[in-house]
Amino acid sequence: MNIHIENILKDLEKDNFQAYLLTQFTNVEYISNYKPTSFAFCIIQENPIIYASGMDMELANRDSSIEVKEFESFDVMVGELKKEGIKNLAIEPTLPYSTYVRFRDDFTIDSKNYIDAQRMIKTPDEIEKITKATEIAQKSFLQLDIYNNGGSEKEVAFDLVRYMIENGAEKESFDTIVTSGANSSLPHAIPQAKSLEEPILIDWGAIFEGYCSDNTRTMVYTESQQEIWNIVAESHDKAIKAIKPGMKCCEVDKVARDIISDYGYGDKFIHSTGHSLGLDIHETPGFSLRDETIIKEGMVITVEPGIYLEGEFGVRLEDTVHITKRGNVIGDLPLNI
Amino acid sequence: MNIHIENILKDLEKDNFQAYLLTQFTNVEYISNYKPTSFAFCIIQENPIIYASGMDMELANRDSSIEVKEFESFDVMVGELKKEGIKNLAIEPTLPYSTYVRFRDDFTIDSKNYIDAQRMIKTPDEIEKITKATEIAQKSFLQLDIYNNGGSEKEVAFDLVRYMIENGAEKESFDTIVTSGANSSLPHAIPQAKSLEEPILIDWGAIFEGYCSDNTRTMVYTESQQEIWNIVAESHDKAIKAIKPGMKCCEVDKVARDIISDYGYGDKFIHSTGHSLGLDIHETPGFSLRDETIIKEGMVITVEPGIYLEGEFGVRLEDTVHITKRGNVIGDLPLNI
Repeated sequence: MNIHIENILKDLEKDNFQAYLLTQFTNVEYISNYKPTSFAFCIIQENPIIYASGMDMELANRDSSIEVKEFESFDVMVGELKKEGIKNLAIEPTLPYSTYVRFRDDFTIDSKNYIDAQRMIKTPDEIEKITKATEIAQKSFLQLDIYNNGGSEKEVAFDLVRYMIENGAEKESFDTIVTSGANSSLPHAIPQAKSLEEPILIDWGAIFEGYCSDNTRTMVYTESQQEIWNIVAESHDKAIKAIKPGMKCCEVDKVARDIISDYGYGDKFIHSTGHSLGLDIHETPGFSLRDETIIKEGMVITVEPGIYLEGEFGVRLEDTVHITKRGNVIGDLPLNI
Repeated sequence: MNIHIENILKDLEKDNFQAYLLTQFTNVEYISNYKPTSFAFCIIQENPIIYASGMDMELANRDSSIEVKEFESFDVMVGELKKEGIKNLAIEPTLPYSTYVRFRDDFTIDSKNYIDAQRMIKTPDEIEKITKATEIAQKSFLQLDIYNNGGSEKEVAFDLVRYMIENGAEKESFDTIVTSGANSSLPHAIPQAKSLEEPILIDWGAIFEGYCSDNTRTMVYTESQQEIWNIVAESHDKAIKAIKPGMKCCEVDKVARDIISDYGYGDKFIHSTGHSLGLDIHETPGFSLRDETIIKEGMVITVEPGIYLEGEFGVRLEDTVHITKRGNVIGDLPLNI
């Protein structure tokens, strides 16, 4: 039995639950190494089991480290759980309401963050994969020849994905953002079929063996753009320098936000300072206003302050930080490129 | 006020609910034309409103046809709903349990399929976009030169996505499947960095103005592969021919499945016969064993029977069908290519 399951069994015992139901694909993958392509129900109990879709059975039997049965119906699954004497069922917080309804009449249910709590702390093997994903992504970025190919935002985004795949990525870790000019004030801008304007903001990442990377760079060209860039860079650098195990996540957000606020742009920093990543591009905890999670060694969290001037432009700078005794930036791509 | 909102208001009145909460990005987009890039809460009531993330406010204000406010907290949102006298709240079935919990103490809640029910029936404008997406995808497929580029599965998949984007797609409508040889028996195989073997199964689609397409073709090379292909093609053709408004969805599944079963491969057809598509690649209803939905004009549903011989190979053939007085295949790509 793997360590993740052992830990969850301890959590369950402590809280007096007899089983834990997971359906998120990356949670099932984290537990069993089988990543569903259709629905799956992973039930962690003394004898952990996955109920998989018929179309996934070949894949599940090949990849899963725990027992797999073919899902027949909710009635059958609920019946088997009851036969094992399960009365108290913990569920993952993201479980869809319509699935919850299938269980609520037969079990005492509450949602628990056991799985997120474990996924927060990355193993050396996970760190290695995130590092490799970051290296692929950064190497690919440096292969871009932004102006000489006369490309549009969309074409540059496409080139970047192509390089990442050629360099060994499974795929991009999210829709690659290449935005420029006034559109760069949209934090999640969609690349357009228009020639690049200035500044140019690129937010991109690769997936390597299931694990994500995430970086942002903004290339500025005028004095006023450079002025904003300098503030964001100061916020980025000082926040990273401040990171230490034992602090609260919100305290890192405050370091980043206070710098931007001191320059008078507090209301233009319209998102949190960072998010964890791993099998998913967005995981918990995050460097945000209200996240009181204590920072621990082994966490991997982005630092990505930004200033967004609607109708003008936006600047964001992002690195991914592996926390040991301090915050270590993963990869070696300069901020100023 | 748009027709979608008007219809939902009628549904609410009929069932004695005062508001309907939606959070799925494509549901919010369907209602308001604003597609969230972070979280959003869309509340349909007499005065419909969207609570959007701060980082999305510029985008939401630009795109939304209904009022947008910046989300502050669940407490504020719940307080405003109560101030408007809302006591009974309908929610979308996919709402995460952890979000449901934020509302359950203040409102009488039940999940309702109002939005899915509307999205089932496509408008002429939606049909046009799905058709255009299909045309882009099929044209791109024909540009592939599968053997001459000496490419791997992964490279062929990448070429196909590149052609789709060059031909005007926003992006692929799901992770493009290019699989070959024994791996083709995995319905959702991931393209590998290995040279193509035989047979070759390609399952791909484009997104055009938000709308998805979906097709599968399998190229076979041996007599035994051709034999299986012929059975799947017969199942595909006869199921499409059988489609008529007024039938139940499961009856179309039965037509497709019976043919494959008659040839002795019933247990090798390990998924349902088809799914609806639109803003999402998987929508309801589906041509499946238990879906009793009555087929209506305006639905767009795939027909994609398959036979999967573990350790040997798989064959799937898929077209997307627009239902009028009968089932009309969208696009004109031959099955036999």
